[in-house]
Amino acid sequence: MRYWWVNHNQTFEQELDGGYLWSPQRQANGARNQFYENMRLAEPGNPVLSYARRVVANVGMVRDSAVVATKPASFGATGKNWSAEGWLLPIDWESLATPFQPRERIGELGPLLPTRYSPIRRDSGYGNQHAYLAEVDVHVFELITGVRTTQPLEVGPSASLGDSVIAQLDDAIQDHIQNDPELDETTKRQVVDARRGQGRFRERIWRYESGCRLTGIQNPRFLIASHIKPWRVCDSARERLDGANGLLLAPHVDFLFDRGLIGFADDGDVLVSSKLGINELNGLGLIQVCEKTGRPFDQRQKEYLAYHRENVYLK
Amino acid sequence: MRYWWVNHNQTFEQELDGGYLWSPQRQANGARNQFYENMRLAEPGNPVLSYARRVVANVGMVRDSAVVATKPASFGATGKNWSAEGWLLPIDWESLATPFQPRERIGELGPLLPTRYSPIRRDSGYGNQHAYLAEVDVHVFELITGVRTTQPLEVGPSASLGDSVIAQLDDAIQDHIQNDPELDETTKRQVVDARRGQGRFRERIWRYESGCRLTGIQNPRFLIASHIKPWRVCDSARERLDGANGLLLAPHVDFLFDRGLIGFADDGDVLVSSKLGINELNGLGLIQVCEKTGRPFDQRQKEYLAYHRENVYLK
Repeated sequence: MRYWWVNHNQTFEQELDGGYLWSPQRQANGARNQFYENMRLAEPGNPVLSYARRVVANVGMVRDSAVVATKPASFGATGKNWSAEGWLLPIDWESLATPFQPRERIGELGPLLPTRYSPIRRDSGYGNQHAYLAEVDVHVFELITGVRTTQPLEVGPSASLGDSVIAQLDDAIQDHIQNDPELDETTKRQVVDARRGQGRFRERIWRYESGCRLTGIQNPRFLIASHIKPWRVCDSARERLDGANGLLLAPHVDFLFDRGLIGFADDGDVLVSSKLGINELNGLGLIQVCEKTGRPFDQRQKEYLAYHRENVYLK
Repeated sequence: MRYWWVNHNQTFEQELDGGYLWSPQRQANGARNQFYENMRLAEPGNPVLSYARRVVANVGMVRDSAVVATKPASFGATGKNWSAEGWLLPIDWESLATPFQPRERIGELGPLLPTRYSPIRRDSGYGNQHAYLAEVDVHVFELITGVRTTQPLEVGPSASLGDSVIAQLDDAIQDHIQNDPELDETTKRQVVDARRGQGRFRERIWRYESGCRLTGIQNPRFLIASHIKPWRVCDSARERLDGANGLLLAPHVDFLFDRGLIGFADDGDVLVSSKLGINELNGLGLIQVCEKTGRPFDQRQKEYLAYHRENVYLK
């Protein structure tokens, strides 16, 4: 079990109300940043301490693995220097009965904080300006919440899949597209249809694919037209409607691919994420299927697949 | 291959614009009606002649099997005597280059029309007031469209699944719920979350179910919370949030159950629709699974399952 601490900075309200965390994927100069990389290391069921305005007043649980997502529209002008492409981590938030003020109790808290990548300064309790999502020790969590975690928290059966949060963001993007003066009505309609794998986008995939690569199903009625680079982070209508950016997958295979639990190598071999358990792979009847040799992809598909492996696939 | 003829009556524009046909399930007095029953007999790929204002000016192809759906909001006051529960059949419409006027060519057309359940009168070409969706002979289709159908039309690879049409209707219902003065904000939120199988609805299913009945998967992250009586036709927030109205299903099993391609007997045995081919069942790895003996349902679940067998399941 890993424990996390987020410094919300300016987007505190949006993140609490929305039920998520959002960070850019890279720094403005293109460099990797551990506080952003942590977004992808957080796992469903991990607790998160929420720090804003010098106090930890909320605690959350990660609902689902991070997904690629453009900066939420609700951020407005905040973080306008951030790159638009980022990670979104769905979180269930709860307020703490007794908020915790790190500066007042830095004597106890400081020694428990990490020496590297600490969210706040170990000596003074002042926020570390560059920190966003930091990993902390279980004892930090216990001190702040007053909860002794004798056993790992489990993702309850009610665990949502983060779908509602993502659907809301996608709705906002769709609204934006429908108000885009650069796009004609036909293109708007096609782009909106493409969100659900319908229409022109779906038609165009057949130039590249003939059925589901895992199950062998070729009947169109049982195939989902799945974006390789997700619809919500595509740069343009062209990318959203590009047949090379799609695969035809059986519904359960689409579910796994969309969540980064499987991926594809350029030669067509299936990659299975370490996050996908043997029980589930077996239950879905895909164990043997995933071990078969694949069929190489087209050059144009490979570009999108590289994006998926880098940003969606969970190693 | 079966051919169909629809008399749109007052809802011509809504049905053409929306890409569907809609009829009540029963007559106002509760009786079955062949013109409504035909909605469920139409299959993906079947051609449909569109008759309105005394002319056949459009022809369509059935995109997907009919689904249960309440009367579209766009109908407004039209058909206010119709029961709100009905069938929705997704259609791709195209206009005919040369519209066909039945009354002017009734000499040729009349003898080709059926003697029973004809959409228009065989002698005069006047519309049959009670007709909605009627089955017609291939020669009617050929006469009207000028197309000789030497071979069955096939559902093209681009065939959409009707998902966009259904999503639009569900969006309209969601808007209606969000403006319902009878519901408090918390309930509204729960009902909207329930549309995507999230939140309170999802939690409550676990009182009745412990995992996917077909695949045996119990990990919540791989389970879809699926309504037995579909969300869009539930009568109330209570039905939409009732745990007894839900099953926990693996993604591909949810896909089949939602489309009526599988159902359940009260004793838990799986029913496989005649519309679900052996190739697809095999490709999805579910052949053996569907033959196993099931676990009986709770009395409260049985009521919803009866609705599913009657209105969603495709015999």
